[in-house]
Amino acid sequence: MNKQQILADVSDFMAEQIPFQKMLGFEIRKFHPEHCELAFHWRDELMGNVPQRILHGGVTATALDTVGGLVAIASMLERFEPESETQLLERLSRCGTIDLRVDYLRPGRGKTFTASATIIRSGNKVAVARMELHSDNGEHIAFGTGTYLVG
Amino acid sequence: MNKQQILADVSDFMAEQIPFQKMLGFEIRKFHPEHCELAFHWRDELMGNVPQRILHGGVTATALDTVGGLVAIASMLERFEPESETQLLERLSRCGTIDLRVDYLRPGRGKTFTASATIIRSGNKVAVARMELHSDNGEHIAFGTGTYLVG
Amino acid sequence: MNKQQILADVSDFMAEQIPFQKMLGFEIRKFHPEHCELAFHWRDELMGNVPQRILHGGVTATALDTVGGLVAIASMLERFEPESETQLLERLSRCGTIDLRVDYLRPGRGKTFTASATIIRSGNKVAVARMELHSDNGEHIAFGTGTYLVG
Amino acid sequence: MNKQQILADVSDFMAEQIPFQKMLGFEIRKFHPEHCELAFHWRDELMGNVPQRILHGGVTATALDTVGGLVAIASMLERFEPESETQLLERLSRCGTIDLRVDYLRPGRGKTFTASATIIRSGNKVAVARMELHSDNGEHIAFGTGTYLVG
Repeated sequence: MNKQQILADVSDFMAEQIPFQKMLGFEIRKFHPEHCELAFHWRDELMGNVPQRILHGGVTATALDTVGGLVAIASMLERFEPESETQLLERLSRCGTIDLRVDYLRPGRGKTFTASATIIRSGNKVAVARMELHSDNGEHIAFGTGTYLVG
Repeated sequence: MNKQQILADVSDFMAEQIPFQKMLGFEIRKFHPEHCELAFHWRDELMGNVPQRILHGGVTATALDTVGGLVAIASMLERFEPESETQLLERLSRCGTIDLRVDYLRPGRGKTFTASATIIRSGNKVAVARMELHSDNGEHIAFGTGTYLVG
Repeated sequence: MNKQQILADVSDFMAEQIPFQKMLGFEIRKFHPEHCELAFHWRDELMGNVPQRILHGGVTATALDTVGGLVAIASMLERFEPESETQLLERLSRCGTIDLRVDYLRPGRGKTFTASATIIRSGNKVAVARMELHSDNGEHIAFGTGTYLVG
Repeated sequence: MNKQQILADVSDFMAEQIPFQKMLGFEIRKFHPEHCELAFHWRDELMGNVPQRILHGGVTATALDTVGGLVAIASMLERFEPESETQLLERLSRCGTIDLRVDYLRPGRGKTFTASATIIRSGNKVAVARMELHSDNGEHIAFGTGTYLVG
């Protein structure tokens, strides 16, 4: 299987086929073994604090978990040579979050939010990513760390 | 202001007025200074892993963050004597998550999920809660720890 | 190799051969695949806050990391059938902490401290443990969670 | 009280008067409200993995907790105007770690290790810092996040 094609196929799948990510309006902007990004727009349904009109902490956690998982998978794919689509799918379906830490720094206010992830540790079994959430006005809203099972 | 009435009013507000919690179908089952619970039902929109039909990690994180925040607030209310509704609202709007850790133990499968939280540290400024997510078939899906600003 | 003998040998090694654990005076009290315990005594050298005479946070973190690692290893040994001592040592030397979270609840005061760990997730590659630190006067000083590479 | 003098006095106290930090050989290199650094040298007593000759995870956790606490305190001092030394000491003795996360990336090998911390959130009650540990050969050994009570 062609490596570029695999990356493109998996990115498309992640972008289109994950119901909860679609529900929140996540759009994948970058899918690369070192760095991934997704973006989403403000909607009133995403609010957690109504008087102050700020994002629910769970939206922030979901964005960070998702983008960290993307970079963990992209990083795993770089060194994995699947012999068939079945083998690729089998490997992907075994991937998952082991643990996640989110640090909330500033209120989640803005029109568009960008979550980005950098790979920190990329092993055969476990990957670690650091993630950040920023708003379109440049505020650093949250950061996080995720440990992912990739093997 | 009457303490029981405050607890009841805040519980109603939390149950009905937080858009993202409504979107996910969270129902508050217990709102007590030591222990809180919420429940929600499986819906396909909450999936993160389609081939295996399991909850998105962000749903789990949201449930744990939410129930931990509930017990942090209930615990803060127990020692707080607001002189007016304005003072109560002002205090509540300052509360928020400082950080959250989620440990994912088993795939999120089931018809109904219950998230519960126990208060571990209850200070004037900071509260710490431990949280768990269980499915209706008795599986322990995740646990977590949250640190909350309450003052 | 005999399973009981392996557990006993590894426990002895952990108790006697780790310099930093000896420096802190850690004594292993229980080494079991589900639950481990260690104890240590107050010494002025372990202080972090002199006016209040309380343990340094690093001592607490070390005790929790150590006891969590013990239960991760004991749990791994239960399902691992080494063919030789070399294979056992090779596997042990690959084990290590992936990440650690410590929640500090109360000041570390007392004469003797007991750290205990329970296995929460025991996989072929990754184990997760929850840990607690108590003082001899019954105070719950800290708890924590550790994720360990065991394969 | 003169602000520069306060910073210098507290830095001296932190460097000289904390028994566990002296036991590990920590030397404060930078004490600034935005960024702090400490260094320590390899000693066999700090080993956790003898066959591989690497630092105990507890040493890494202690270094990160310590340097994160330094920047939390330096940052708090910047906005605090104590009226007396008594008031300063009283405030300092109330400071402490709320929670700590450590991510272990690479084996702790080297002759000298440098732990650094950057302030991420500096509030009246709670400060959050990000920390890193590097060896003298440029390896990034660990990073972490700490939440500190400062008020």
